[in-house]
Amino acid sequence: MTLATLLSRLDAKAHAAADWGAVAAYIPQLACVNPAQFAISVALADGSLVSAGQAKTRFSIQSVSKVFTLACVLSRIGESIWARVGREPSGDRFDSILLLEQEQGRPRNPFINAGALVTTDELLAGRAPREALSEVLEFLRVASGDDDIHIDSAVAASEQATGYRNIALANYLKSYDNLINEPDLVLGTYFHQCAIEMTTEQLALAGRGIAGLPGAPLLLSARKRRRLAALMMTCGHYDGSGDFAFRTGLPGKSGVGGGILVAVPGVASVAVWSPGLNAWGNSKVGTEAIETLAHKTGWSVFG
Amino acid sequence: MTLATLLSRLDAKAHAAADWGAVAAYIPQLACVNPAQFAISVALADGSLVSAGQAKTRFSIQSVSKVFTLACVLSRIGESIWARVGREPSGDRFDSILLLEQEQGRPRNPFINAGALVTTDELLAGRAPREALSEVLEFLRVASGDDDIHIDSAVAASEQATGYRNIALANYLKSYDNLINEPDLVLGTYFHQCAIEMTTEQLALAGRGIAGLPGAPLLLSARKRRRLAALMMTCGHYDGSGDFAFRTGLPGKSGVGGGILVAVPGVASVAVWSPGLNAWGNSKVGTEAIETLAHKTGWSVFG
Amino acid sequence: MTLATLLSRLDAKAHAAADWGAVAAYIPQLACVNPAQFAISVALADGSLVSAGQAKTRFSIQSVSKVFTLACVLSRIGESIWARVGREPSGDRFDSILLLEQEQGRPRNPFINAGALVTTDELLAGRAPREALSEVLEFLRVASGDDDIHIDSAVAASEQATGYRNIALANYLKSYDNLINEPDLVLGTYFHQCAIEMTTEQLALAGRGIAGLPGAPLLLSARKRRRLAALMMTCGHYDGSGDFAFRTGLPGKSGVGGGILVAVPGVASVAVWSPGLNAWGNSKVGTEAIETLAHKTGWSVFG
Amino acid sequence: MTLATLLSRLDAKAHAAADWGAVAAYIPQLACVNPAQFAISVALADGSLVSAGQAKTRFSIQSVSKVFTLACVLSRIGESIWARVGREPSGDRFDSILLLEQEQGRPRNPFINAGALVTTDELLAGRAPREALSEVLEFLRVASGDDDIHIDSAVAASEQATGYRNIALANYLKSYDNLINEPDLVLGTYFHQCAIEMTTEQLALAGRGIAGLPGAPLLLSARKRRRLAALMMTCGHYDGSGDFAFRTGLPGKSGVGGGILVAVPGVASVAVWSPGLNAWGNSKVGTEAIETLAHKTGWSVFG
Repeated sequence: MTLATLLSRLDAKAHAAADWGAVAAYIPQLACVNPAQFAISVALADGSLVSAGQAKTRFSIQSVSKVFTLACVLSRIGESIWARVGREPSGDRFDSILLLEQEQGRPRNPFINAGALVTTDELLAGRAPREALSEVLEFLRVASGDDDIHIDSAVAASEQATGYRNIALANYLKSYDNLINEPDLVLGTYFHQCAIEMTTEQLALAGRGIAGLPGAPLLLSARKRRRLAALMMTCGHYDGSGDFAFRTGLPGKSGVGGGILVAVPGVASVAVWSPGLNAWGNSKVGTEAIETLAHKTGWSVFG
Repeated sequence: MTLATLLSRLDAKAHAAADWGAVAAYIPQLACVNPAQFAISVALADGSLVSAGQAKTRFSIQSVSKVFTLACVLSRIGESIWARVGREPSGDRFDSILLLEQEQGRPRNPFINAGALVTTDELLAGRAPREALSEVLEFLRVASGDDDIHIDSAVAASEQATGYRNIALANYLKSYDNLINEPDLVLGTYFHQCAIEMTTEQLALAGRGIAGLPGAPLLLSARKRRRLAALMMTCGHYDGSGDFAFRTGLPGKSGVGGGILVAVPGVASVAVWSPGLNAWGNSKVGTEAIETLAHKTGWSVFG
Repeated sequence: MTLATLLSRLDAKAHAAADWGAVAAYIPQLACVNPAQFAISVALADGSLVSAGQAKTRFSIQSVSKVFTLACVLSRIGESIWARVGREPSGDRFDSILLLEQEQGRPRNPFINAGALVTTDELLAGRAPREALSEVLEFLRVASGDDDIHIDSAVAASEQATGYRNIALANYLKSYDNLINEPDLVLGTYFHQCAIEMTTEQLALAGRGIAGLPGAPLLLSARKRRRLAALMMTCGHYDGSGDFAFRTGLPGKSGVGGGILVAVPGVASVAVWSPGLNAWGNSKVGTEAIETLAHKTGWSVFG
Repeated sequence: MTLATLLSRLDAKAHAAADWGAVAAYIPQLACVNPAQFAISVALADGSLVSAGQAKTRFSIQSVSKVFTLACVLSRIGESIWARVGREPSGDRFDSILLLEQEQGRPRNPFINAGALVTTDELLAGRAPREALSEVLEFLRVASGDDDIHIDSAVAASEQATGYRNIALANYLKSYDNLINEPDLVLGTYFHQCAIEMTTEQLALAGRGIAGLPGAPLLLSARKRRRLAALMMTCGHYDGSGDFAFRTGLPGKSGVGGGILVAVPGVASVAVWSPGLNAWGNSKVGTEAIETLAHKTGWSVFG
């Protein structure tokens, strides 16, 4: 079976799903998205790109953006971020504030909301939000080789209006002096970064560097690329990270918009999208598709 | 530089360490071990075995045994264990009881003490401790191709006499009906399983199957082998698991005796030993050696 | 309305209850007690004793014993106990182990199980369990002026056989060196102390000293009596302590046998019993009776 | 010794203190207050008022205001507040957010910051902040019989500028739908309520009603007064509530401005002030003065 056939079958299987999961209700603009949608794109080491489903439909990448903000910070600023954020899975929900109190304002990792706010704060570092956002967008455009990547400002505004939990997190971080900028500035930048919209085609292409595919634009050293992948493996799916690693054997990062970026080191970069979420806030049908893909192809970092 | 030279240098570097870490104080028999010891063995895909340091010195494998008990359970009994134990990193110390209360007696994963007690309980399943222990020993002997693997009963007795925290865990699990057998029976078996002693040579050979090396005795399906490795990656070093994955890019499982087993899928099975521990209860010098080894060889599951 | 009439009405109201609550299921010997029972006794400052219901029926005082063990420790040994146990409400269940990990083996207060185990350990202090138990029994006999107070050894044995959670607590305390004696010795003593059986008449009389009634045997200084009452007020009903204080305005201590001892300083000592429990493990109908009694009499420490 | 003499000695003893504690550093305007200040005032049942120290110096009552906001809510709106906030001590710091996550947005009690924000939100109930604040000020003026009670707007502004932890709490509550108004509105009102400034004379007089002194303006029923006092006893000093009850036997409510209001039911209303705080955020020298006062006078709700 060719990869194209396999992806088509995954698309068909997705549409046969009895339960697509529930869209994220806490962001009004996302709450009205139809959950019964699916797309998958795979960029291969030979430079080809194979897709199925709505691979040209833009969706809100949300927390998948955390991988790229961290990539920007690691490549431009370096490792100083680790003085402010840990590298351990949290075992808690993506928006949990509990450990932040127990661990005195130091988030467990850069892929939960608290840690991502610190990463965005580090990225800002005295600059205007516009500059920081341009850096992330530029990184994505170069990485994917596609300039047509933008921010959906309606989604950003929607989250800004009701993102009480994130506002709480940012202010809590600030109370522990773990934000340099004022909370509102960091939040504004963060909500816009999360509101970047991409297609699975664009996202799969943007992930080629993290997967270490030959021919990908060189934006990260091998060491940094591996470290990003390691963080995706242990922390990329919040309190469902262990289960995702167990099921797929692959590093991935999910977003509440329903997107997941998965790296198959040296082999492929995979982007999947389906807006309905499972209990951990990760794409339900998307996770299932990655699991089947890994199973059928034998792709796994564990040999 | 050949692998043999590299391993010799790691041995030399270990002995130049200013700080070997502290041996586990809570098990009297381990507390009197000299921390300034080091051994490393690497079993390669071509069937060769390369070592440096005290690779023929036996040490207490302690929690490294959890990988093999789980392997026995998965291969003989199957997946029913997951009804009783999770697959997520805990973010807490190896002997933590806290989450067990919050999650009503269901341990986060089989590699923290609480989860390992459940695994041992599942392995017992109505049999006498002697039979369960024979099964684990036999697995190790076949996997390593070496019959000379035994239990150090002095270490088992030492832990049994003062293992108050483990006694607490087992009784707590029983209070939630998540032990089938009486706590004392499970604890007796568990303390003996942890007291298995091996050399790094034996351990590296025993790990070949998990690393999926050609020629290794076929004790696990590819699917089970990958799942074990995924668990090692996300949960193998307790609340230092994320950091270990970040630093080495490799799945590993540590024990408080100072041993670490690391799988380089398709490439090598590595065993390192140095009894002094870091803050997370993992071998200090052993962890550093694995990190250097990964760096110098480029071994990483992340390509 | 006379007090006798009021108590009779409380008895009648209790028997009209639609829901008596559920008996403690985790101690087999208590699980078979009929929940539809009620007794109340009030010892007054004038030396009189007024009762209603089954005031001559013996019941297992369980955690009400913690008040008297602590009284023994405070009067014979003194304040050194506070180096080992706190004086703050825990906000958790009576048998919680969670805070014990966060606070490194130091129980929040002497009225939760963990704290009571430490108190019993302090009481033992190198003596045989029999001697410590004799001291508590003797205290109760002198305080109540009644020698006919004994231990129900069937209840003690029943709890010993299945008290996994308490076994966990004792071993956990020992792992933090907060038990002097071996866990089994402390547990044996503790289970027997909890298995003391008394009638509400006996318990109300035994409580006269804590309520500071004139004519009560002088076993405690005014300072110690007040401090015991303060602890009953803030910690006497586990995670329902605040609610009990809010509803009744009186210090009290409950037990899972369904008994509650309440002090009305200078005015009365009240004992109530009804075996069915509410969500916090306190007597359901007993709590309601105390609330009505406080309301009708105007008894409240808050004037 | 007369009460006047006793209070003078408490003032002298305070000024002989080697350690006054540290002023609250997180509110800039309070951080510059001289900690070496002391005042105490006692309003008695006979209508007299006895003071020592700087009893005419105004200080920021901060969290002592929570007693009066709750009194306003209970007397005008009633018991509906209990659907939104609990009545149990939290065992955590005054500004803790941890339990709020575990208990899904329902604060443990109205005297920790989270609970007080809910109380202020209930008080607002669609009105402008000015109206709600007028209600609290009017309550205090009537209760104390003194119209000269105002808000220090510099303190309110100071807290508003840096009160990140409270901003976090309010937004977190809103994310659980446990605020009716927008967080900013509630916070503005809350910071102003906390910035009310009073002298110990005024505060002792304002507390007469809660202590149930004859002749006090009738603002609360006996039932409500007792319930307020019970909450002060179990929750009035955050995670030091049990200790305060143990030491003094009296219900009290502290504020980070260094004030404490204590009720001796039927006997006296006591206000003490000294700006330096102990480890729990309660006035260090003030707490010690209350303890000595209780000891010397024999005042205790426990007889």
